[in-house]
Amino acid sequence: MKTILEIPVRSTEVDLYGHVNNAKYLEYLEWGREEWYREAGFTFTGLAGQNIGTVTVNINIDYLGECRIGDLLMIETAPEKIGKSSFVLLQEIFKKENYEKVISARVTTVIIDLEKRKSIPIPGELLRYLQAADL
Amino acid sequence: MKTILEIPVRSTEVDLYGHVNNAKYLEYLEWGREEWYREAGFTFTGLAGQNIGTVTVNINIDYLGECRIGDLLMIETAPEKIGKSSFVLLQEIFKKENYEKVISARVTTVIIDLEKRKSIPIPGELLRYLQAADL
Amino acid sequence: MKTILEIPVRSTEVDLYGHVNNAKYLEYLEWGREEWYREAGFTFTGLAGQNIGTVTVNINIDYLGECRIGDLLMIETAPEKIGKSSFVLLQEIFKKENYEKVISARVTTVIIDLEKRKSIPIPGELLRYLQAADL
Amino acid sequence: MKTILEIPVRSTEVDLYGHVNNAKYLEYLEWGREEWYREAGFTFTGLAGQNIGTVTVNINIDYLGECRIGDLLMIETAPEKIGKSSFVLLQEIFKKENYEKVISARVTTVIIDLEKRKSIPIPGELLRYLQAADL
Repeated sequence: MKTILEIPVRSTEVDLYGHVNNAKYLEYLEWGREEWYREAGFTFTGLAGQNIGTVTVNINIDYLGECRIGDLLMIETAPEKIGKSSFVLLQEIFKKENYEKVISARVTTVIIDLEKRKSIPIPGELLRYLQAADL
Repeated sequence: MKTILEIPVRSTEVDLYGHVNNAKYLEYLEWGREEWYREAGFTFTGLAGQNIGTVTVNINIDYLGECRIGDLLMIETAPEKIGKSSFVLLQEIFKKENYEKVISARVTTVIIDLEKRKSIPIPGELLRYLQAADL
Repeated sequence: MKTILEIPVRSTEVDLYGHVNNAKYLEYLEWGREEWYREAGFTFTGLAGQNIGTVTVNINIDYLGECRIGDLLMIETAPEKIGKSSFVLLQEIFKKENYEKVISARVTTVIIDLEKRKSIPIPGELLRYLQAADL
Repeated sequence: MKTILEIPVRSTEVDLYGHVNNAKYLEYLEWGREEWYREAGFTFTGLAGQNIGTVTVNINIDYLGECRIGDLLMIETAPEKIGKSSFVLLQEIFKKENYEKVISARVTTVIIDLEKRKSIPIPGELLRYLQAADL
């Protein structure tokens, strides 16, 4: 229900100040969500094959600390809120060394009919997986 | 008070679906803020020379539309809220072609003493520029 | 025959040392090639519609200087060598301020049949455009 | 002497065609070189502390295959040629699944005096490590 993805900070991911840039964290979060979908047994291509799309409509991200080259990070992803056709994943990033929380983000995803480009109820299989999280 | 930066969407900025990726928009927003600081007469190095740092602590971004290679975008940046040691810039991205709003984001910045790494009141010069925005 | 694309160096494009990173220049070069194709009247989707693909098989890039945030760059792109099913574009990047050459690169492209994934002769229209370059 | 770094292809690293973009491979190669320096006992900051800089002056890269999201890659890095003040690392990228070679690149690095910005002989310690590669 909660997935944890470990990644190192790479040299090409820091800015002038030696910190991971604020935009890069959104890539990290996307990698974390992919891991979550993968463990849930869903893949973007699999969902697309059923005419189901997942659209990110909002990201609300708090920057709590700084990361540098070589830091090992843990990206934790778990459902926080389930609506009719949308859900919110809470994603937090910690430094593995001292478990300092550096990022806290809420990512809102809407489920759509890919052809009609309209929101639809969360498909049963995904809904059951989300609900198993026992919020 | 409000700055507008025009940029084209580049081929290396779209993902598998041909859309600008959600992380890339945060880079666009940073370019927009730089333009805002530049017009305000502030540069990161100039501020750093006065031991003043600007730290992004929160970004709350709504994804309202999709952008593709070749789209011309307008990044609008203006102050929305001024606190004692922090302020919020409202940044919106429009397609130039039809003025469709594709991004609406609020970016919260805290002013810090670079050495002590502690928040300090917004420096007078920057404060006056922010207030001139006539919120 | 030769195209020139002007771009500024953005804050998110420099590394720890304040320089444009070596990988980023390859994105700049791609933007320059797109400009070249566009002026030639070709688009990737247009070519794809004719079952024609362009595959980059080699890039040989000399790093001659350093670029920093705010530098204005000129990306010059022109054909250098034309083969049967491949051609080489010479791409050079200059600082606009003093015309210092910072990058010199040769990019080899092979034309393929998209379905069969095999090289084919350069299509007549593109060949004529390449030859007009009067090497 | 030869280092191998394993990485997965991430969703944010592919382009419109679902392939890793040609510029991204240069980031992968940089990560591979970092791994090589790290195993050699050198770090960029350590070298900088001795007023020694490493400057990439040329990259010659052959694109031999295509990589997609989820592919596991092995980045192999080893010295190929040692000069007086420069050396060439051969870097090859393979798919772990079938050991298909997708990238072959030669990266030329010059050693410089950081202050004077002039090339200097390869420092003894690094030279011994390079020579141990038994070319």
